[in-house]
Amino acid sequence: MQFDSLDDIRAFCRELPEGDANAADAAALRQQTLTKPPGSLGRLEELAVWLARWQGRAMPRLERVTIAVFAGNHGVAARGVSAYPPAVTAQMVANFDRGGAAINQIAGVAGAELRVMEIELDRPTRDFTIAPAMDVGEFLNAVDIGYRTVPADGDLVAVGEMGIANTTTAAMLCAALLDGDAVRWAGRGTGVDDAGLARKRAAIEAALEVHRAISGDPLRVAAALGGRELAAISGAVLAARQHKIPVLIDGFVATAAVVPLARLNAGILDHCRAAHVSAESAHRALLTELGLNPLLDLDMRLGEASGAGVAILLVRAALACHAGMATFSEAGVSGAET
Amino acid sequence: MQFDSLDDIRAFCRELPEGDANAADAAALRQQTLTKPPGSLGRLEELAVWLARWQGRAMPRLERVTIAVFAGNHGVAARGVSAYPPAVTAQMVANFDRGGAAINQIAGVAGAELRVMEIELDRPTRDFTIAPAMDVGEFLNAVDIGYRTVPADGDLVAVGEMGIANTTTAAMLCAALLDGDAVRWAGRGTGVDDAGLARKRAAIEAALEVHRAISGDPLRVAAALGGRELAAISGAVLAARQHKIPVLIDGFVATAAVVPLARLNAGILDHCRAAHVSAESAHRALLTELGLNPLLDLDMRLGEASGAGVAILLVRAALACHAGMATFSEAGVSGAET
Repeated sequence: MQFDSLDDIRAFCRELPEGDANAADAAALRQQTLTKPPGSLGRLEELAVWLARWQGRAMPRLERVTIAVFAGNHGVAARGVSAYPPAVTAQMVANFDRGGAAINQIAGVAGAELRVMEIELDRPTRDFTIAPAMDVGEFLNAVDIGYRTVPADGDLVAVGEMGIANTTTAAMLCAALLDGDAVRWAGRGTGVDDAGLARKRAAIEAALEVHRAISGDPLRVAAALGGRELAAISGAVLAARQHKIPVLIDGFVATAAVVPLARLNAGILDHCRAAHVSAESAHRALLTELGLNPLLDLDMRLGEASGAGVAILLVRAALACHAGMATFSEAGVSGAET
Repeated sequence: MQFDSLDDIRAFCRELPEGDANAADAAALRQQTLTKPPGSLGRLEELAVWLARWQGRAMPRLERVTIAVFAGNHGVAARGVSAYPPAVTAQMVANFDRGGAAINQIAGVAGAELRVMEIELDRPTRDFTIAPAMDVGEFLNAVDIGYRTVPADGDLVAVGEMGIANTTTAAMLCAALLDGDAVRWAGRGTGVDDAGLARKRAAIEAALEVHRAISGDPLRVAAALGGRELAAISGAVLAARQHKIPVLIDGFVATAAVVPLARLNAGILDHCRAAHVSAESAHRALLTELGLNPLLDLDMRLGEASGAGVAILLVRAALACHAGMATFSEAGVSGAET
């Protein structure tokens, strides 16, 4: 395993690998010479410079683009917090494998390889209202699966998840690590009714009490109050940082999955972009807490990396402009009058 | 010509061709059966239903996608309202033809055919602070060029423009047809300085005075205070309505171009979607006035259909999900518990 202990992760986060400022500067300079008013491609320009910084190439590439979807099951599902039964997690993984899910279609349009990792679906985490969801060994194992899912030679990675009840787990991590407010972070997920929403909040409040002793330790919280697919997403983000691969983070659950790392070192998000803001009510607040500005706002709330997959298309457009446009001098176009 | 007089356009707008409600209903019904919580693909679902309604097919297609960019020159450029000289319009058209502009790269990523129509670049419209920009014949000619640019068998059309000084023309149409407020609609365009912005506002205010007599007639305003590329965009929107082709409208100028039609009949926008909200300051206000909810918000302000071109990618993702996803029964996935 890349990380044999929580201390290994803590050590990695203390001295994070950094991007290539020279490549970023060269890319930004090129953007100034392309046949358009400076800055007029907006966030597409910013995306090109971001690719350059993390790939370490003034002219980035998008040959190997991976969508990583991690699936896990949650003991807290027994609390009646989801509109769907836990069996749906495995059913949807089978649907991914047969190519029938939204993310399969989006991966096709985005020219991305889809990697689906199911993590012990027949062994849900423990119900965290009663006991730690995972012990440290289980947590590190899930982190490792995420870490190994990222190809070291990748050019861009999009991360997402599938797991019935996991918006409860995501809200749990936010409440435990940000402000202790169950009401703020619990939303309707896949479409739970008022009674289900009340059960969700009650479960989070109960777990905050049960695990109060570890609330100051982000990684212990990630183990005791998290989920396997969330741990795997954090592992994928760590691997991408190690290999200098830019990351697109999907929706509320995928964003919540990186909160423990962000509490260790906010700089862990430098190689990441929020793909979209989802319709899940707490996502916008979470992005604001983390200083992330989402690329898309399409009222999506499906998970399974669907928003991140769509955002790959924006990154492709950004790179195409960066790489393919003529400069003012090449095209013989007059610049601005000064 | 499709429209031999302004009255012909008025007559078309009185009884607009409508979409296919049956196809839309069938598409919406299919969305309810796909393996995702209902509504969880957000605006991607809405786009699929919109395609179905206007193509008249429950299973829409995107085989022939056209990006139409219209270019024109503006007499009002002589008032010092732009950061760039008028020669740039023709230079950028040459850049489009050689494949060096942003829209060439975006068209490539989006799988779209790019049609660039330059309209009498060596004969700018007259300076509307002094005289009508176009007479009715010139206006109808530009509308006709736009109309004929839309292929009758198209599946989706994105419309945009290129024309130095045309954010002044766009602001002019908004001020003349919406509220008479030059300050509200004049923005920095390609990056004009404070003095240029003041000249822009002064030009609009002067023209409002000069052309006060026609302010109640949207099409006379479109001729006297508009531009050839804006007239062509309105022609393209009319053609798309005639042929039942959905339209993606680009930024501030392209949106302003349809204001005269919208004043005749607000329903003209039913087959259109706003591709994005641009960084040009007045665009958001204009979209709100027209009841349009933009798909993207990427701080772009380039024009040349760049935002509309990027939005094609969203439509492709929407259709891929609509067409390719398995239904709950096909995939053997359990539905929500009720």
